[in-house]
Amino acid sequence: MNKSQKISITKIAELVGGKIFGDSNAVIKTVARIDEAVKGDLTFLYLPEFEKFADTTQATAILIKPDFKKNRNDISYIEVNEPEKAFASIVINFFPDRYTLEGIDETASIHKSTALGKNVALGKNVVIGSNCKIGNNVRIYHNTVVLEEVEIGDDTILFQNISIREECKIGKRVIIHAGTVIGADGFGYHKDENGVYKKIPQLGNVVIEDDVEIGANTAIDRAALGSTIIRRGVKIDNLVQVAHNVEVGENTVISGQTGIAGSIKIGKNCILAGQVGLAGHLDIGDNVILLAQAGVTKSILKPGIYMGYPAKEAKAFRILEAHNRNLPEYSERIKMLEEEIKKLKEEISRQKT
Amino acid sequence: MNKSQKISITKIAELVGGKIFGDSNAVIKTVARIDEAVKGDLTFLYLPEFEKFADTTQATAILIKPDFKKNRNDISYIEVNEPEKAFASIVINFFPDRYTLEGIDETASIHKSTALGKNVALGKNVVIGSNCKIGNNVRIYHNTVVLEEVEIGDDTILFQNISIREECKIGKRVIIHAGTVIGADGFGYHKDENGVYKKIPQLGNVVIEDDVEIGANTAIDRAALGSTIIRRGVKIDNLVQVAHNVEVGENTVISGQTGIAGSIKIGKNCILAGQVGLAGHLDIGDNVILLAQAGVTKSILKPGIYMGYPAKEAKAFRILEAHNRNLPEYSERIKMLEEEIKKLKEEISRQKT
Amino acid sequence: MNKSQKISITKIAELVGGKIFGDSNAVIKTVARIDEAVKGDLTFLYLPEFEKFADTTQATAILIKPDFKKNRNDISYIEVNEPEKAFASIVINFFPDRYTLEGIDETASIHKSTALGKNVALGKNVVIGSNCKIGNNVRIYHNTVVLEEVEIGDDTILFQNISIREECKIGKRVIIHAGTVIGADGFGYHKDENGVYKKIPQLGNVVIEDDVEIGANTAIDRAALGSTIIRRGVKIDNLVQVAHNVEVGENTVISGQTGIAGSIKIGKNCILAGQVGLAGHLDIGDNVILLAQAGVTKSILKPGIYMGYPAKEAKAFRILEAHNRNLPEYSERIKMLEEEIKKLKEEISRQKT
Repeated sequence: MNKSQKISITKIAELVGGKIFGDSNAVIKTVARIDEAVKGDLTFLYLPEFEKFADTTQATAILIKPDFKKNRNDISYIEVNEPEKAFASIVINFFPDRYTLEGIDETASIHKSTALGKNVALGKNVVIGSNCKIGNNVRIYHNTVVLEEVEIGDDTILFQNISIREECKIGKRVIIHAGTVIGADGFGYHKDENGVYKKIPQLGNVVIEDDVEIGANTAIDRAALGSTIIRRGVKIDNLVQVAHNVEVGENTVISGQTGIAGSIKIGKNCILAGQVGLAGHLDIGDNVILLAQAGVTKSILKPGIYMGYPAKEAKAFRILEAHNRNLPEYSERIKMLEEEIKKLKEEISRQKT
Repeated sequence: MNKSQKISITKIAELVGGKIFGDSNAVIKTVARIDEAVKGDLTFLYLPEFEKFADTTQATAILIKPDFKKNRNDISYIEVNEPEKAFASIVINFFPDRYTLEGIDETASIHKSTALGKNVALGKNVVIGSNCKIGNNVRIYHNTVVLEEVEIGDDTILFQNISIREECKIGKRVIIHAGTVIGADGFGYHKDENGVYKKIPQLGNVVIEDDVEIGANTAIDRAALGSTIIRRGVKIDNLVQVAHNVEVGENTVISGQTGIAGSIKIGKNCILAGQVGLAGHLDIGDNVILLAQAGVTKSILKPGIYMGYPAKEAKAFRILEAHNRNLPEYSERIKMLEEEIKKLKEEISRQKT
Repeated sequence: MNKSQKISITKIAELVGGKIFGDSNAVIKTVARIDEAVKGDLTFLYLPEFEKFADTTQATAILIKPDFKKNRNDISYIEVNEPEKAFASIVINFFPDRYTLEGIDETASIHKSTALGKNVALGKNVVIGSNCKIGNNVRIYHNTVVLEEVEIGDDTILFQNISIREECKIGKRVIIHAGTVIGADGFGYHKDENGVYKKIPQLGNVVIEDDVEIGANTAIDRAALGSTIIRRGVKIDNLVQVAHNVEVGENTVISGQTGIAGSIKIGKNCILAGQVGLAGHLDIGDNVILLAQAGVTKSILKPGIYMGYPAKEAKAFRILEAHNRNLPEYSERIKMLEEEIKKLKEEISRQKT
């Protein structure tokens, strides 16, 4: 971040609709965690476990909820209804990521048939193949490779050591983190009469729409035919596997290490938590939430929260899990019932005689 | 793909043993999905959900099953028993992957002690260490690194940003996708008397036999001693973990994000679906199928289908899963039995008196 | 390894406190598996399944347990209490990894503001940004990128194709394997009033303390604020996900494909086996062992072994699993009880009449 800037807390309070208690002329330079803040920092408080730091933090200003005690003279309090949310918008507004790459390094290699937009920055050893279209303000960091006929929209950032295979299309304002591979061949084989797998050429591509962010060391495979499609606004975390011919709907969020098998269609505004797995050729509707490690074996069209393997509605899963924990008790009760029955039978046979 | 070629549908029908209905002089240029096909495309139909496109597709020719209606004059139908299989062999025969890398780039660095075969292609910033043997027609894409004493067989392709560590052996016709790491140190430590982990040097290597394909961002560790071995014809997907001293048998298929712990031996013709995990030092026999997310804690020698955690035969798993879903009912029935017993006891004690 | 060295077995026996039977003047050149050893090799025997090789191995010397038969004249036996442990310390002492990178390659790019220690080795196409501090004896392999203001301690090794983002701090004697990404942006968004995710700038960094080892293609994200911290002596395997603001305690071991969500604090001396997943904002205490594929949904403060999803104490899990396997039987017993009750009721009603 830019360490020499100075921001008045009145400006900050204005942005988030906050009310200042204490010195309203205070100026902050940056933001910090409450337990690490020093003079010049803005911090925030929303979790009870951090309240203990409120009396000792060295921060210049602190975002708090309306009901929080304001017992210090050496700190400016900014009251807001939701300190966490307010802090996020302050960071988004005043502390943008600084991705400082500038200019085209002399070791970058751009094929002569490729068109670069205005103000493009290319790091060291970047390779861009033939017939690509690179938009304005695109920044591509060191050692990243872009093969032939790739299109990259304006303001997109590719970090280091990324591979973009031929013919893929990447939208505007996309961010892709280091080590990610876009457009490797899908995992498709044809078993021949001798039981040997023959590779089926993967003739499609990957299309990533605008405003998508993709984490580090993730892999999104090209389609066998047509396109693997990541729709506008999708956010994908690290080490995620997206197989060939998948389509992920707008504003869907996919957390780390989740795996999406081939030809799955996922709707809009879904949340896939970490390590979720989806079997091939499924349909996932809009607004579906899959909790961590869920293993989805059938299509899920109804919005809701799902978990477990095989994935079930969370409510149903939790009921079954509670019954599961009771199994030792159930087993005991079955045994007791059997003994009771035995006794009753004896009793009855005694009565008969 | 080569966009200027023209292939007559009689040649295509010949390859797949198909029967043409309609214009047998038709010529296609490429292949496409039925919902995306345009004039000049060959397409195919095997899933009922795509049948609705048969009346409107712009394709020039379409592969269909014998019983499918042939009501259009502007399209050539090719009847085959298995359109999907036929399509796969057409693609394999007429539309090979075009991996266009050619020549040795001037930024590639090859140690003077290393022998290159004929017709080798090396991309930009490729690094090849000392005493390697690189076969004929090997293609190594940009920014890939091959350390000392590595052997690579004829016709093998390494994509971008790959790391091959020293002394590994890679066979013929192997394909390795971008970002994959072959031969990193195995995860081996020795806990000393102070509880501190000391690294055990990993002195072995990785051996990859002929006709293996390995996906993107996968990691296959070198052996502690001896070799981690991937046998002929094995296909490994993206983000797979293969630990030190593993051996994977011929023609086994391993899907995305599966993890294989150290010293496991896996047989021939196995299928490991996505996100499967295997604990260390196990034996998996030939023809074992592990469904997605299976967690294998014991050796499995009997061919068959296994699933769940801890992994069980699929049939047994499904029976238990059905019982699990019945738990609320079982619980209710136990409660009712207890009430019945109570009533019976009261009844009997009434009878006694 | 250095193939020209010669080590006397008396030196070896001395190191591990072993007793030699047979030729104590024998000299070995390297180490090998018992089934692969040739003349000049030291091997070891600790698993019963390898005992069959003891009569035929070509090794020059073999580490055995005290009670093992010593029936050959052409081999030197070295008796130790724990052959595996002895072998590990022999390898650590006599066969260090040979990481041979030397000198600063002319294609490496070091920003002029960056200070290099003594005896630094930089491979081809290495990029080091501005204002970094690189310690003595640091080795950075080909095509690895280190952005601005990064600190790297003495004797640290970074393998190929690694990305270290700006401002991260890496300690002494750290080893990071190929393809790993340190300091990519954490996965943090703020959902705006239109349901669109806005990226929250990730202003923190990653701090990796001394003696840490990190596997291949792993991702450790920078903190939103403050630091993601990997404490001294931690060992992390391949393809592991460590999200923003995580702290991993000293000497904790994390196996392949494990995923640690944001803001988790993990204690000292823990063991996380492969494919473990931890949900965000949890606390894991010291000496906690999580078995493979465990899915942790709540904090675990009590030392012990945990497994399953949701994670439970291993003992409890195994009891429930045993009950689970009995479900078909329980179901049968419930049915029989119902029949018995029915019969009893009939019996009683017969008695009444």
